[in-house]
Amino acid sequence: MTSLYSETTPAVVRNAKGLHLITCLTPNGKKVQILLEELKDIYGLEWTTSLIDIDTDEQKKPWFLKLNPNGKIPVLIDNAGEQPFPVLESSAELLYLIETVDKDHQLSFSNGKEQSQMMQWLIFWHASGQPNQSQLNHFGRFAPKQIPYAIEKFKAETLRIYNVLEIHLSGRLTCQAREYLAGNGLGKFSIADIDAYPWIQGWKRSKISEEEMASYPHLKEWINRIGSRQAVQRGVSDIYDEDLHSELLIST
Amino acid sequence: MTSLYSETTPAVVRNAKGLHLITCLTPNGKKVQILLEELKDIYGLEWTTSLIDIDTDEQKKPWFLKLNPNGKIPVLIDNAGEQPFPVLESSAELLYLIETVDKDHQLSFSNGKEQSQMMQWLIFWHASGQPNQSQLNHFGRFAPKQIPYAIEKFKAETLRIYNVLEIHLSGRLTCQAREYLAGNGLGKFSIADIDAYPWIQGWKRSKISEEEMASYPHLKEWINRIGSRQAVQRGVSDIYDEDLHSELLIST
Repeated sequence: MTSLYSETTPAVVRNAKGLHLITCLTPNGKKVQILLEELKDIYGLEWTTSLIDIDTDEQKKPWFLKLNPNGKIPVLIDNAGEQPFPVLESSAELLYLIETVDKDHQLSFSNGKEQSQMMQWLIFWHASGQPNQSQLNHFGRFAPKQIPYAIEKFKAETLRIYNVLEIHLSGRLTCQAREYLAGNGLGKFSIADIDAYPWIQGWKRSKISEEEMASYPHLKEWINRIGSRQAVQRGVSDIYDEDLHSELLIST
Repeated sequence: MTSLYSETTPAVVRNAKGLHLITCLTPNGKKVQILLEELKDIYGLEWTTSLIDIDTDEQKKPWFLKLNPNGKIPVLIDNAGEQPFPVLESSAELLYLIETVDKDHQLSFSNGKEQSQMMQWLIFWHASGQPNQSQLNHFGRFAPKQIPYAIEKFKAETLRIYNVLEIHLSGRLTCQAREYLAGNGLGKFSIADIDAYPWIQGWKRSKISEEEMASYPHLKEWINRIGSRQAVQRGVSDIYDEDLHSELLIST
């Protein structure tokens, strides 16, 4: 047995063949769920899924930490090789799937500069947008006490980043409006969009108001454009809800 | 003239040939400075540098926002093609340089799984470690008032992430100690290390105590290991200090 697994590793994980996703219906889980659903539509990709309930801290247990010492979902495990290969960090999982499955570059780019542009906006979102919206959620919804300075700081920074995306999509500074975050001309749907969508489409849950959001019309159109895709709709749907699919739930 | 430049774009930027870096001696600037210095040692890479003083908000001026609507340094511009190609986000700049310069994979990997491991740890740092240490700096050093809850939250999360790196380097869970963040066996120095080093080596400035840091002996050894490289030493040195090198300073 590889040292990735211990006696407490659930059999469904230990015995998985091919790609196995351990996820939960959070924005980060949805990123990988969406991409897998897209790759199913394009390439007929198959994988298996386990769900965990992060409220029970299953992801902090020793069996999980051997797969991801950061103790976070999603984790993607590729069992196609001699040894299982775990991939952590949602954006790195998107990149791994693109490298191994998207041979025709349907959700990425063959051109080096367009590929770099995809990486720039993917990293911009994951390293700047997401941490701020995440802290806005914490201080606005979950923190044990109200700290107005922190709420205002993270709200302002999240909206500043939404405005950077609005500038980029509107073409206000470059004279080139675009439909997607990366790619020449109007751009092309790619993992840069997939990385940001599950967070930004949840703006209401982050207590961003309709009035505030009205300042970003191109971003709102982008949300609708991405959300109209069938694979995206499946990727964020209750087929990944552990309350409705207890047959997929891991609870050790 | 390309729409990337305006009448207020400094001539040194507009007329640059080859690679041009606009930077400042911050942890994010240092990432790209280090990699350029490494690529100089390995491949004889040449580039030009402009420094800005971010305290003057030069990076929020219209000429800069056309290059990077996020208004942050570093920005790397590749002038080798028909059109100047700006790259934003420090990690994406590392990746662009690796793709275009590191043809022998001396600071990256030719093997897909090792390359994925490099991406996982690069993204782990940039999207999890860096935002938390950055907020620790804000609430611990710069915020207009002391908010103990926020200081403690971001301190605890930064140290938790240091501990994830300690687990990874020590091999405590995998029975495989390592010297670098990515690569088989002991690992190999790569942009995953370069991405994290300038932040983590500044732990004292983030008000992390000697006593706290003593819990992460493998991480401390890693800091010393990376810091012993000549190119790393040049990349974080005062050759990039705008106070000492006013000839490189852009001030419009």
